[in-house]
Amino acid sequence: MNLLYVSLIAGLIALIVVFFLVKDILKKNPGNKKMVEISGYIEEGAMAFLKKEYSYLCVFIIVVAIAILLFLNYRTAIAFVVGTLFSITAGYIGMRIAVKSNVRTTEAAKSGIKEALSVAFSGGTVMGLCVVGLGITGLSIFSIAFDLNVEYITGFGLGASSIALFARVGGGIYTKAADVGADLVGKVEAGIPEDDPRNPAVIADNVGDNVGDVAGMGADLFESYVGSIISALTLGTALASTLGKEIVIFPLVLSSIGIIASLIGIIFVKGYKGDNPQKALNLGSTISGVIVLIAGFIACKYLVGNYKIFLPVIAGLLVGLIIGKITEYYTSADYKYVKFIANESETGPATNIIAGLSVGMRSTVIPILLIAIGIIISFFAIGGSRDTALGLYGISLAAVGMLSTTAITVAVDAYGPIADNAGGIAEMCELDESIREITDKLDSVGNTTAAIGKGFAIGSAALTALALFASYSQIVKLETINLLNPLTLVGIFIGGMLPFLFGALTMESVGKAATQMVEEVRRQFKENDGILKGTQKPDYSKCVAISTNAALKEMIIPGLLAILVPLLVGILLGTEALAGLIGGGVVTGVMLAIMMANAGGAWDNAKKYIESGVHGGKGSDAHKAGVVGDTVGDPFKDTSGPSMNILIKLMTIVSVVFAPVILKYGGVLIDLFIK
Amino acid sequence: MNLLYVSLIAGLIALIVVFFLVKDILKKNPGNKKMVEISGYIEEGAMAFLKKEYSYLCVFIIVVAIAILLFLNYRTAIAFVVGTLFSITAGYIGMRIAVKSNVRTTEAAKSGIKEALSVAFSGGTVMGLCVVGLGITGLSIFSIAFDLNVEYITGFGLGASSIALFARVGGGIYTKAADVGADLVGKVEAGIPEDDPRNPAVIADNVGDNVGDVAGMGADLFESYVGSIISALTLGTALASTLGKEIVIFPLVLSSIGIIASLIGIIFVKGYKGDNPQKALNLGSTISGVIVLIAGFIACKYLVGNYKIFLPVIAGLLVGLIIGKITEYYTSADYKYVKFIANESETGPATNIIAGLSVGMRSTVIPILLIAIGIIISFFAIGGSRDTALGLYGISLAAVGMLSTTAITVAVDAYGPIADNAGGIAEMCELDESIREITDKLDSVGNTTAAIGKGFAIGSAALTALALFASYSQIVKLETINLLNPLTLVGIFIGGMLPFLFGALTMESVGKAATQMVEEVRRQFKENDGILKGTQKPDYSKCVAISTNAALKEMIIPGLLAILVPLLVGILLGTEALAGLIGGGVVTGVMLAIMMANAGGAWDNAKKYIESGVHGGKGSDAHKAGVVGDTVGDPFKDTSGPSMNILIKLMTIVSVVFAPVILKYGGVLIDLFIK
Repeated sequence: MNLLYVSLIAGLIALIVVFFLVKDILKKNPGNKKMVEISGYIEEGAMAFLKKEYSYLCVFIIVVAIAILLFLNYRTAIAFVVGTLFSITAGYIGMRIAVKSNVRTTEAAKSGIKEALSVAFSGGTVMGLCVVGLGITGLSIFSIAFDLNVEYITGFGLGASSIALFARVGGGIYTKAADVGADLVGKVEAGIPEDDPRNPAVIADNVGDNVGDVAGMGADLFESYVGSIISALTLGTALASTLGKEIVIFPLVLSSIGIIASLIGIIFVKGYKGDNPQKALNLGSTISGVIVLIAGFIACKYLVGNYKIFLPVIAGLLVGLIIGKITEYYTSADYKYVKFIANESETGPATNIIAGLSVGMRSTVIPILLIAIGIIISFFAIGGSRDTALGLYGISLAAVGMLSTTAITVAVDAYGPIADNAGGIAEMCELDESIREITDKLDSVGNTTAAIGKGFAIGSAALTALALFASYSQIVKLETINLLNPLTLVGIFIGGMLPFLFGALTMESVGKAATQMVEEVRRQFKENDGILKGTQKPDYSKCVAISTNAALKEMIIPGLLAILVPLLVGILLGTEALAGLIGGGVVTGVMLAIMMANAGGAWDNAKKYIESGVHGGKGSDAHKAGVVGDTVGDPFKDTSGPSMNILIKLMTIVSVVFAPVILKYGGVLIDLFIK
Repeated sequence: MNLLYVSLIAGLIALIVVFFLVKDILKKNPGNKKMVEISGYIEEGAMAFLKKEYSYLCVFIIVVAIAILLFLNYRTAIAFVVGTLFSITAGYIGMRIAVKSNVRTTEAAKSGIKEALSVAFSGGTVMGLCVVGLGITGLSIFSIAFDLNVEYITGFGLGASSIALFARVGGGIYTKAADVGADLVGKVEAGIPEDDPRNPAVIADNVGDNVGDVAGMGADLFESYVGSIISALTLGTALASTLGKEIVIFPLVLSSIGIIASLIGIIFVKGYKGDNPQKALNLGSTISGVIVLIAGFIACKYLVGNYKIFLPVIAGLLVGLIIGKITEYYTSADYKYVKFIANESETGPATNIIAGLSVGMRSTVIPILLIAIGIIISFFAIGGSRDTALGLYGISLAAVGMLSTTAITVAVDAYGPIADNAGGIAEMCELDESIREITDKLDSVGNTTAAIGKGFAIGSAALTALALFASYSQIVKLETINLLNPLTLVGIFIGGMLPFLFGALTMESVGKAATQMVEEVRRQFKENDGILKGTQKPDYSKCVAISTNAALKEMIIPGLLAILVPLLVGILLGTEALAGLIGGGVVTGVMLAIMMANAGGAWDNAKKYIESGVHGGKGSDAHKAGVVGDTVGDPFKDTSGPSMNILIKLMTIVSVVFAPVILKYGGVLIDLFIK
């Protein structure tokens, strides 16, 4: 049991590093008065969103906690509340520091790209280490307190998922409402450039980068990280009697190794001497991965005494890596698909849209095959053909393995929006062109890491959901989930439909919020013509308020859907229907997540590719068509697509936590039918 | 066994009626010389497509027949070949008569709407009766010849499916390549109206209506019709020992009743005295449905002696009906969704596209819930909770019930493109405005019936595939298909991905073919300026050839995919993985089919709604945005969407037919892994 303290210590180490990193970042020079002012607006906007979000969250947390108290037990309720608080804390620190790092990155850029990278990456690292540090600390504490009783620990996972819903779905709506709104009036109607301080929505847009890409992505991976470990604990517990207790603790040890490995990787990035940020980030990620492989293997051999247990970990790490990389193939202008979309833009927006959709749909093939291969290896290599429970444990280990280097993955990913913000601040403060060039370079590397990060988030969500699905089936004592049972079939159909409905709702939300934003910006331009002349300051806070309110209001219905439909199906149609629902939801959820993320990324880069001068360049008809595709792609890749990750994990963890209730009361409708 | 002759006779009656209808249609006046000339071009184009298609088919049929001979047996091979020939014959007669009916409808319109309706509906009826007549005749003959041995009869279903692939996918590519090509250059670039004889692609466009909407839809429903009956025969056979042989024959009897009921309904349509074509068609459909309900119930009571057997039939009929009707809600300008899309068009094409996609995604909810309810009722009402085999038989009966009135459903549906063609001929021959008004009225009713027909085709494809899925599991002796088996999971993921890939490929095909068409039309306009002046005739045949070649070439890869992937997965990963593949494919296939059909329909009508004068009417920015949505919607609703129906049924019937091979050799990869 002492090993649980190892993971606790690993978590605390991560948090201590966060403490020093934060001190270090705050010590940096935030630049001149104008820069401090502008970044102050962004910080203010971000905090306004957080404050509002917390007021919603309070109500939500209390209601769910009471439901858990009533239907389950107080221990799960405590774990749930602490799970929400830990995720909130991670998001709070991550975002607070991100909005301090952006302006300091701008200032550091004056000394060169290496210095700017260092600050931006430190900002991202804070988010990354908060995710893993708080995640594993929480899990370790509850594992010790509840003596590894997974029934209670799952509450922590539900807490993480609930906050992810708010952060990812709400954040996704926030960022795209602001972005689309700012672009439609600013760039298209008023003809002012991106990040122009005259645009009233410009601050909301910059806040959105933090809300969506820092806090949202962080919460998403916090959920995956915690969820995958919980599922491994659950499935390991069932095997402990035959294979020894070590098998339960191994996932926590592996995650601890991942934290240390990430820290070492982070040191390498910070110490990188060259001028190429992409290489620095790649170096750090590679080193972390290699360390996990070596140290993990040793731990596996000496702790569990069975090297086969390690094969799923390798599979998980590799699948996560390749899925991320393959995303680049579909979304980078270096490869044929983005060029194809750009080419199709010549015949107008319709052919651009058709091309983008088909590229997105086509891009599901390789990731799905990779996930399939990952599942097969994880299950069979570990010995699943003789022992299904062991095989399913293998799948959960693959998820834990994939997520073991989450710290550096999030750091690399969250660095992007900070660099993006830094560029925005440089623009708004009219700093020297050379500064903007440096931030642009960092930002463009950030676009690649963001695409890779999205692929990774989807892959990890899929594996986490599958592992939790296996946990669910064990808790409700389903030895088989029979597709020939019509209730399973019905569950699969309903589950398969939910991501479509969820996607429709979130896209509509962005549309509605963006329309409000457009109207507000138009109003300000109309009522005060000093704004466009640059003699008067626009009212940034109104636009921030619109995004904030819309984001939180519009996520209520999709959120309720993700939580209530599984419960409803479980209660009405029983445990097997609910299992089907999860299965169907995961399958179409993953498809839509991949399709939307890649179509959106490809449209974005096709537009940029045209802007680089091909097919007539900026202002040409092809470019106009490209802008249409990019605008459609915005909610695809930054709202609806990433929301799928949350949907599939949330549905699953809700089922896991409430499994005892469903096991007891489930299937009332069918009972009626049969009687 | 005498009852098998009943269904044979019902089939022959349908074919005899076809004979007289054809004679009647050919007797009608085809109009003046110009009309005969123009309709001659359309007929020529249609025949050119058929001829080319048959040359491809010959090769395909021979290859597959040899494969069946090698791996299965000669009886299945014979049934397969006959199945293809029967489907080809149905398509040939249906299309041949459709292209004779169009010009006669135009001519009849001179005497009034009632006369025009009568001719167009006769033309559609020929297609409808050919489908059911040839379908049930073929099934009856093989049931008698093979003494109801379903193993061989399934070959007939595979034949039907193979032709459906060519007709629906190839037809879908044909019609949209011509349509998009004709519109992009004709309407947008040259500024000439729809159906203008100066447009070189106009004939190809009109041929496309017949190829896609008459022959394609007919082949699709021929496949569903035959497939559902085969699955009911298969599942019934397993129950015969306990419940009596009547249970095997009942589906055939029910279908025979459906044919007679449809004939009566058709008589009512033809005899309708009023001026409202919509009412006439509704009347006929309703009467047919009611007769099936009454006569079917009596047959059930006296033949099977168990009224519960009839509950799935009612469920199937109702679900088919409501899914069709609900389609209208999402795609008609009378309801809020189309208005919403039109409204969003005001802010440009991007918001129009986002709105259309979200409406399409949202529109999956109710059909899926209906299918779910249908499955539950069919399974449990018949007594599936005590006897799974009986419950699955219930699901197949729901499919047979839904499809029992296929004759009149196809008649109502195929009448649309004939009326559409009639309008095109009126336009091209510059007939009096009043003629065009009548055909426009018929055409607009046709748009509604087409939308309903699409919903029905999807619902029936889903139920048919599920019923065949149950048959498959029985043949490969799977009593449970366990979702916790990683191979099943992997199968579901791969199956779930296939419709996305299929959709991407078919959309790209339309894009490529349309581009060729655009280039050809541009070339003709450029090289011969007499065409646009109206002094010289364009070269229609070049455009027809482009559509024809593209349609057949571009369907090879998607077609091979639908056939080979199931076999490959079965051989490599075994029977349970293949079961998962079918399950996953059906779920996402149905989702995408609904989404694409409804998004496409909604975009189309949103554009028409704007053209009616709202949001600035024709030529406004909103209208331009509407045109973009409509163009994206074209391959959605007429190519990729309907192709999903084929994909899910074809995958399933391939698995059913080759089940013995997969049972024997399947799972080689996994065997390697385990050893």
